[in-house]
Amino acid sequence: MVYLGVIGAGECDSTIWDLAYQVGEEIARHGAIMICGGLGGVMEAAAAGCRAAGGMCIGILPGPDRVGANRFLTASIVTGMGEARNAIVVRSSEAVIAIAGGYGTLSEIGLALKAGIPVVGLETWGLSRNGRPESSIRVATSSAQDVEMVWTLAGKH
Amino acid sequence: MVYLGVIGAGECDSTIWDLAYQVGEEIARHGAIMICGGLGGVMEAAAAGCRAAGGMCIGILPGPDRVGANRFLTASIVTGMGEARNAIVVRSSEAVIAIAGGYGTLSEIGLALKAGIPVVGLETWGLSRNGRPESSIRVATSSAQDVEMVWTLAGKH
Amino acid sequence: MVYLGVIGAGECDSTIWDLAYQVGEEIARHGAIMICGGLGGVMEAAAAGCRAAGGMCIGILPGPDRVGANRFLTASIVTGMGEARNAIVVRSSEAVIAIAGGYGTLSEIGLALKAGIPVVGLETWGLSRNGRPESSIRVATSSAQDVEMVWTLAGKH
Amino acid sequence: MVYLGVIGAGECDSTIWDLAYQVGEEIARHGAIMICGGLGGVMEAAAAGCRAAGGMCIGILPGPDRVGANRFLTASIVTGMGEARNAIVVRSSEAVIAIAGGYGTLSEIGLALKAGIPVVGLETWGLSRNGRPESSIRVATSSAQDVEMVWTLAGKH
Repeated sequence: MVYLGVIGAGECDSTIWDLAYQVGEEIARHGAIMICGGLGGVMEAAAAGCRAAGGMCIGILPGPDRVGANRFLTASIVTGMGEARNAIVVRSSEAVIAIAGGYGTLSEIGLALKAGIPVVGLETWGLSRNGRPESSIRVATSSAQDVEMVWTLAGKH
Repeated sequence: MVYLGVIGAGECDSTIWDLAYQVGEEIARHGAIMICGGLGGVMEAAAAGCRAAGGMCIGILPGPDRVGANRFLTASIVTGMGEARNAIVVRSSEAVIAIAGGYGTLSEIGLALKAGIPVVGLETWGLSRNGRPESSIRVATSSAQDVEMVWTLAGKH
Repeated sequence: MVYLGVIGAGECDSTIWDLAYQVGEEIARHGAIMICGGLGGVMEAAAAGCRAAGGMCIGILPGPDRVGANRFLTASIVTGMGEARNAIVVRSSEAVIAIAGGYGTLSEIGLALKAGIPVVGLETWGLSRNGRPESSIRVATSSAQDVEMVWTLAGKH
Repeated sequence: MVYLGVIGAGECDSTIWDLAYQVGEEIARHGAIMICGGLGGVMEAAAAGCRAAGGMCIGILPGPDRVGANRFLTASIVTGMGEARNAIVVRSSEAVIAIAGGYGTLSEIGLALKAGIPVVGLETWGLSRNGRPESSIRVATSSAQDVEMVWTLAGKH
């Protein structure tokens, strides 16, 4: 079984929603299990797409109970650890797709790169180190290309 | 969806294996999602029973990768947090069934009782506090009775 | 440097307070760093004793900030992880002293025994496994004896 | 008591070492407690400076024991949680100073910004979001200025 993570903010506009939804669909079509943070926004959109395409989606929640979990998750895990759960979202994924995203997403990108887990980004953070651009986030331009890239990077194509 | 946890040691004899297997089956028959620590012994036996009866079983692993995960899990979560993951196993469950078990199971019993999550025990730890017996672990004598009890305790019967 | 943990409930009566205070004093007199959960009750009493005797006491807090930390801590660590922080209290200690205590303390006893960290108990939990008494918690009858035992068990005497 | 975090990679060159050492000295001179990840490189250099100036430095270690802890820590905390401990380093700090740094540092920057904890950077990561520069990391150009900035940001000047 292949596990692919989707990371992104808990709120998003309709353009990002559509992108995330398509990423979820693609993950399901590839037969992978989708991992996410379980809340709204990008996480919810991707979960919705994943489920609509018949896939399985597991949400790793930050709070002490299931309040705030989106309704598209196949199952949810309650960590009670706040943002420390970001490390679990990342560790549970063989590759992650970052879609737009806020500071929580930025932390997940850092955790993934630190753990050697490939990151593909769609309209997300860009990095420079001491003034020099860093290209460790692979840039995709469509949801289909995005999932194709993580799929290949996860070494399961 | 109802989430029921099965906690117990990573090694067990055949009598305990059979008990745990039956508990897994009963959980699946009740239509609940089974949560466990994802490793061998009681966790593996219950997962095997759960899957054989058509249920879904999620393992919350302690290590930094999926090495050691049993092969019956529907999906596994990688925490990289060692025994601190016990808090996640417990938090993700509406009630837990303790089967035999070692010190890790004891910690999960404590975490569950602390969080107000009902614990039903099958041939597991007994407690006394400053010399006086404590009855916070509800004692079952068969796997079917066990699951019936947690089901009721989870408030979903 | 030797690290000794004190575990016990966030509320306690004056008898237990006095015991915990004396344990804190003894830890300081042995020149060890005291680790605890940072809140009230046993944790506060032991911290008060430790500081009064010139020792250093570090509290590992469960919440997302320092609210609820007792005022005797030399320093406090904010985990934001709820009871999962119990694993950190235990891991950071070379031996732990359990004083009275509730379910959180029970979980810490289980985590310590699982990790091979010696546990000395003062008026605390008693264990039996499947009906047979378990003696893995070493029983002390005074705070001085208690600290002497953990000191020896920590292998630093 | 004010807690200031120093984040940066476990290896660094001598220029960065000197910067981090000076930051540690400044933190001690301000009377703050220094929090760090407890390992080598930037963490070790800052701890060395902090101790040399008479300050207190606490390291939050990722591993299951104290192996790898640098020798300048006043006390160390053992989390056994890998990079998930980054959330604890950040949460325990009222403001953080990022010095150079790798992907772990990037994750800490994200976690700090998510939690509303000010980040001051010295020769560290730069961010852009969907192509537009992000200025949430405040840029310092000397260690003294750096600590002055975090001190003010921590609201304790």
